[in-house]
Amino acid sequence: MTPRRDTNWWGWGDPAVTAALDDEALAVLRERIGDLEPWPLATGIEDFALPPAEPLPAALSEAVGVENVFTAKEHRLRHATGRGYADLARLRDGRLEAAPDAVVAPPDAAALRRAIEVCAAEGIAVVPFGGGTSVVGGVEPLRGAHPRLISLDLGALREVEVDPRSMTARLGAGLRGPEAEAALGEAGFTLGHFPQSFEYATIGGFAATRSAGQASSGYGRFDALVTALRLCAPAGDLETPETPHSAAGPALRELAIGSEGVLGAIPEVTVRVRPAPAVRRYEAWIAESFEAGGEIVRAMAQGAGLPDVVRVSDEEETRGSLALSGPRGLAGRAFAGYLGARRRRDGALIVIGLEGDEESVARRRALAVRALRAGGAAHLGQAAGRSWEHGRFHGPYLRDTLMGMGALVETLETAHTWSRLGELHAAVGAAIRGALDGQGTPGLVFCHLSHAYPDGASLYFTFIARGRRGAELEQWAAVKRAACEAIVAHGGTITHHHAVGRDHAPYMKAEVGETGLELLRAAKERLDPAGIMNPGKLLP
Amino acid sequence: MTPRRDTNWWGWGDPAVTAALDDEALAVLRERIGDLEPWPLATGIEDFALPPAEPLPAALSEAVGVENVFTAKEHRLRHATGRGYADLARLRDGRLEAAPDAVVAPPDAAALRRAIEVCAAEGIAVVPFGGGTSVVGGVEPLRGAHPRLISLDLGALREVEVDPRSMTARLGAGLRGPEAEAALGEAGFTLGHFPQSFEYATIGGFAATRSAGQASSGYGRFDALVTALRLCAPAGDLETPETPHSAAGPALRELAIGSEGVLGAIPEVTVRVRPAPAVRRYEAWIAESFEAGGEIVRAMAQGAGLPDVVRVSDEEETRGSLALSGPRGLAGRAFAGYLGARRRRDGALIVIGLEGDEESVARRRALAVRALRAGGAAHLGQAAGRSWEHGRFHGPYLRDTLMGMGALVETLETAHTWSRLGELHAAVGAAIRGALDGQGTPGLVFCHLSHAYPDGASLYFTFIARGRRGAELEQWAAVKRAACEAIVAHGGTITHHHAVGRDHAPYMKAEVGETGLELLRAAKERLDPAGIMNPGKLLP
Repeated sequence: MTPRRDTNWWGWGDPAVTAALDDEALAVLRERIGDLEPWPLATGIEDFALPPAEPLPAALSEAVGVENVFTAKEHRLRHATGRGYADLARLRDGRLEAAPDAVVAPPDAAALRRAIEVCAAEGIAVVPFGGGTSVVGGVEPLRGAHPRLISLDLGALREVEVDPRSMTARLGAGLRGPEAEAALGEAGFTLGHFPQSFEYATIGGFAATRSAGQASSGYGRFDALVTALRLCAPAGDLETPETPHSAAGPALRELAIGSEGVLGAIPEVTVRVRPAPAVRRYEAWIAESFEAGGEIVRAMAQGAGLPDVVRVSDEEETRGSLALSGPRGLAGRAFAGYLGARRRRDGALIVIGLEGDEESVARRRALAVRALRAGGAAHLGQAAGRSWEHGRFHGPYLRDTLMGMGALVETLETAHTWSRLGELHAAVGAAIRGALDGQGTPGLVFCHLSHAYPDGASLYFTFIARGRRGAELEQWAAVKRAACEAIVAHGGTITHHHAVGRDHAPYMKAEVGETGLELLRAAKERLDPAGIMNPGKLLP
Repeated sequence: MTPRRDTNWWGWGDPAVTAALDDEALAVLRERIGDLEPWPLATGIEDFALPPAEPLPAALSEAVGVENVFTAKEHRLRHATGRGYADLARLRDGRLEAAPDAVVAPPDAAALRRAIEVCAAEGIAVVPFGGGTSVVGGVEPLRGAHPRLISLDLGALREVEVDPRSMTARLGAGLRGPEAEAALGEAGFTLGHFPQSFEYATIGGFAATRSAGQASSGYGRFDALVTALRLCAPAGDLETPETPHSAAGPALRELAIGSEGVLGAIPEVTVRVRPAPAVRRYEAWIAESFEAGGEIVRAMAQGAGLPDVVRVSDEEETRGSLALSGPRGLAGRAFAGYLGARRRRDGALIVIGLEGDEESVARRRALAVRALRAGGAAHLGQAAGRSWEHGRFHGPYLRDTLMGMGALVETLETAHTWSRLGELHAAVGAAIRGALDGQGTPGLVFCHLSHAYPDGASLYFTFIARGRRGAELEQWAAVKRAACEAIVAHGGTITHHHAVGRDHAPYMKAEVGETGLELLRAAKERLDPAGIMNPGKLLP
């Protein structure tokens, strides 16, 4: 099957969609980060300079069918990067130093195995490719010691097999989020996994990166949804049992989840599904402060339970994102009304979302409202919540708009226990601000609590600053490094849901220690003795 | 610290406790399994024949302190077996072919590391020992290629450090269940982990065996309670991060949980805790059949949620266990009343337990009652539930009584998805019955659904038959093998919560496949290159 070409090759998603900022938002932005110098695309696909492709052995075409091997420039370019700021910057500038020699798209799991075996025998590096939405360099075509590299596109693996009685479904790795939801919806179910990349990311990618979605506080992170999976490794297939739980030794499933292609490719995943919700209720509240909002979420997580979606913006994000979305918007009006009534200028926006049947949404909402009121939050209404829901997958389009205007826009995330979350929030925010200042480009630094657990929560940072023209990657790397070092210094995880890829690999020793790295290396060497699988990712 | 000697050396738990069967129960038993020939203890500790101990190097005493190395017969004997039927049979007969050369009880984690390093350097096999309650040969002193073997008693590691804000606690591996609960209770918390072995099993053992408890349907299996742990391996310490979740690669924590001592010893575990419940409400219901009871539990698990405890006995267990506990008991009276009212002789006993504050117990009970009534179950009352609660840790004492009378008594467990659970129940029950018949000792075969999940449930089998005097172990092995083969043939897991140990190791290839075994071997070889850690367990 021909790999998909329906997305914007230099940016996010649907080429027909553009995110616009109104005059007021532009004024706020200019005031906070200074004048921007537009950053247009340097070239189209035709003139984009890619390194020449190395020839690949005939055995590879024989393994998957010659019609499933693609060497045209557009395919190579579309599989040469993910969708992080550093990727988009290079695409915008028309320069890539590396690209796959070919895109190989096996039509089924048997062909996938044959392809991996040929690559292992021939010493060809393999980068498994799902939606290509990594923001941490997860699909970067790094060859390691190998002279040749293919992008292994899993897009053709889209089978769906539902077990309605056990409420599980076996899903092909190549299904995008909406494709999986549509197929499950036909059987009356939902997976409930909605990361911001939902519209283009794939089931295999969710598993390989240990993904979390916007509704994961309720439905559970992707790792909690997976009951079994298959990992196609050069040394053989790992197939974990489809029993609800087992005490038969370590959970090997958990070694494949988050393995980011370095142990093998994941052709299929069996997941827990739930009845498709009859009701989705999103609403916004406002707490007196980020700290007060966090305490409300902690009370929910440690008490009567969390809504499906729960997020709390810090004061800076609350002010900033409302300003950028325009004070005339519904959320803006409600917020202004709240601040006027309270005679204050601060507050922390809370969005909660509940999904399910009418009775369960009502019951769980009553519990959530009790916690919100007990924590001093004020109701902003459903309109503001719906406004968030409406724009929930829209952020990456806005990033393209801001980059085109000449801005640096990046996000990063971490997590910690409740007792150390405040410290982590302050430290990482200060590190990002300091690094932006150090680049001579002071910026906006937003944060929200994005997922909650009984023992802690994740923090999601967004920062926007004037791009240093011609030095975008150095500027980005300096700020990213400062943020990562602050995370490590304060004991947070280097990533709560973006995964490791190339960008976080240097911090894995801090995360899992030398013994942890040795365990990962042992697994890699046993399953992939030739070291062909996704070189340069996950392991430092 | 001197290893504990407060338990019955030849059987279960408190030497002052004995379980008695009344005349009616004895009559039922005789009718069903035939006349029994009493099986007295062959000897006391003094005359128990153990193989001589190999001398150990001075470096070991220097590593942990000479006062922490024990070579007296009683200590060696107490660390030579677990508490499975095969263990108790050998103790009863006064014959053990293997015992540790010494019991080494490091006073702290640093001494534990030194002990393991000395053993790695000297090629001494190490069997980590917590509560010694394994029923699958998990602490069997198998030397592998090593001429010497120690039992590494973790009983001195009992530190408790509570983080009340994050609701987590770092617990030393050597804490028994009640010790951990007492320490947590002082801070207002509970761990909520109550396997039948609760009173004597330890925190480290729960982690090493991927334990599940009677209330795990609500509180979560032990693997779901663990947020972080330390694994002390010959090659180094693995310390997993204490963040609530992470996407930084595979979850290495899940490789240590269930590792059963073959990768290293676990000195401490960080777990999620909950507020100590103000209310514990246990009650019994009766469904028309085991199938109907299972459907009720499935509706709960896939709908509004499970009680903390939920178990459904099949018709045979319902009849049999009520008969054995005496029809004059509260449960027996309620059951008889139910059967009379319905004019039937069958039914499936359901026990549910709810724990928490008054409001949440009431709210969750209302949801449970709705599912029970919708599924056609009839209420038997709280007295019958309390009767189960009262005897919840009593089973192993009853086993000693039955063994003393000359009976074979064993339990085993598995799990599967809802769509294949009925098939598994029938097949395993038939295999056990058939194998008992084949031994010329037809028996009682009980089963209950013991833990439930949205996608499936576990089945817990108990069987009682006349022991074949002088051939107890052969008889036991034949029945166990038949049950395991039926489990494997029907795709169940070889163990839902008893772990692998020695007894289930031959079935690990069916469980995780050759690639799965290779992954486990790779981890073992990297962390324990000398192969000293718990030889002969987990891996076939």
